Amino acid sequence: MTALLLIDIQQGLQEMEFYGTERSNPNAEANCQKILNVFREKKWPIFHVQHCSTNPASPLHPSKAGNDFHPLVKPLENEPIIQKNVNSAFIGTDLETRLKSRDISNLVIVGLTTEHCISTSVRMAANLGFKVTLISDATAAFDKIGVDGKRLGADIIHNAALANLKDEFAQVTNTTTLLKELID
Amino acid sequence: MTALLLIDIQQGLQEMEFYGTERSNPNAEANCQKILNVFREKKWPIFHVQHCSTNPASPLHPSKAGNDFHPLVKPLENEPIIQKNVNSAFIGTDLETRLKSRDISNLVIVGLTTEHCISTSVRMAANLGFKVTLISDATAAFDKIGVDGKRLGADIIHNAALANLKDEFAQVTNTTTLLKELID
Repeated sequence: MTALLLIDIQQGLQEMEFYGTERSNPNAEANCQKILNVFREKKWPIFHVQHCSTNPASPLHPSKAGNDFHPLVKPLENEPIIQKNVNSAFIGTDLETRLKSRDISNLVIVGLTTEHCISTSVRMAANLGFKVTLISDATAAFDKIGVDGKRLGADIIHNAALANLKDEFAQVTNTTTLLKELID
Repeated sequence: MTALLLIDIQQGLQEMEFYGTERSNPNAEANCQKILNVFREKKWPIFHVQHCSTNPASPLHPSKAGNDFHPLVKPLENEPIIQKNVNSAFIGTDLETRLKSRDISNLVIVGLTTEHCISTSVRMAANLGFKVTLISDATAAFDKIGVDGKRLGADIIHNAALANLKDEFAQVTNTTTLLKELID
């Protein structure tokens, strides 16, 4: 069985100045919503992962409005929410147990950010034995300053992160292709 | 207490054609040896992580000569070897238990490759609560083909992987700086 994992699609991740100076894929949240809608129609399992930062300055700290889900992907009452406070959705949570107890072996993963929580959760999901499909345009990255002090743009960070995950940890596809496969 | 984790520094990772077309940091193994020597002199804990691929075609499959450690960092008889068959040194192994039972909370991590097993193990180590120092020139990356079909060079893959780990998962420093700190 296949489940959809929506990771950290929260309002706080709109606060650009906390995370970088630019972001890739402005349509990531809209694409996540399209995929979520199909999983809802099909009544397939959905898990919303919510980052609850332990850093009081973080827009994702539970005391902040930014901790709330992005309006496009707000969980319905019957949809489980997995709260985490590290990058991996599998550390400090019962996500692995929940997935395995429901015989879920395939995961479609979307959310934020490509280079931090998505990369970490995809890597760990794959190493735990799940077959992962990552949706390239339903995730997004922020730019970074490299160890040499030079800036690496959001698109380079996004593309390099996906290239590292591709084949080794996940099949990488895009929203249009996924939706075509799911609806066919 | 601080331990040194040497990850996948094995002969098979010299087989360029299996992994890409170019590699960053040709001196990575020599730098790993320098750091290993200091940990040996100080009698600080050392763990050799050995990738035992389940893919019979992989140079790191246990049936292949490439599964053996690189000559510069061959384990001594009393140094523990942690065998793994996924990217993370913490999945399917007792590494976390061993570290915690010896009160090791700080890890210096070196080895191969920056973008696959190093990135995965550093991320998971940090998320499990270890304080990680990653040595930028004691790890190396291969080039990759992106999801758009364009090649991303080994240096870009290396620099982007380090930029993503820096501050979020690890303190990133280089061999010279680390050795100065350790020897002072």
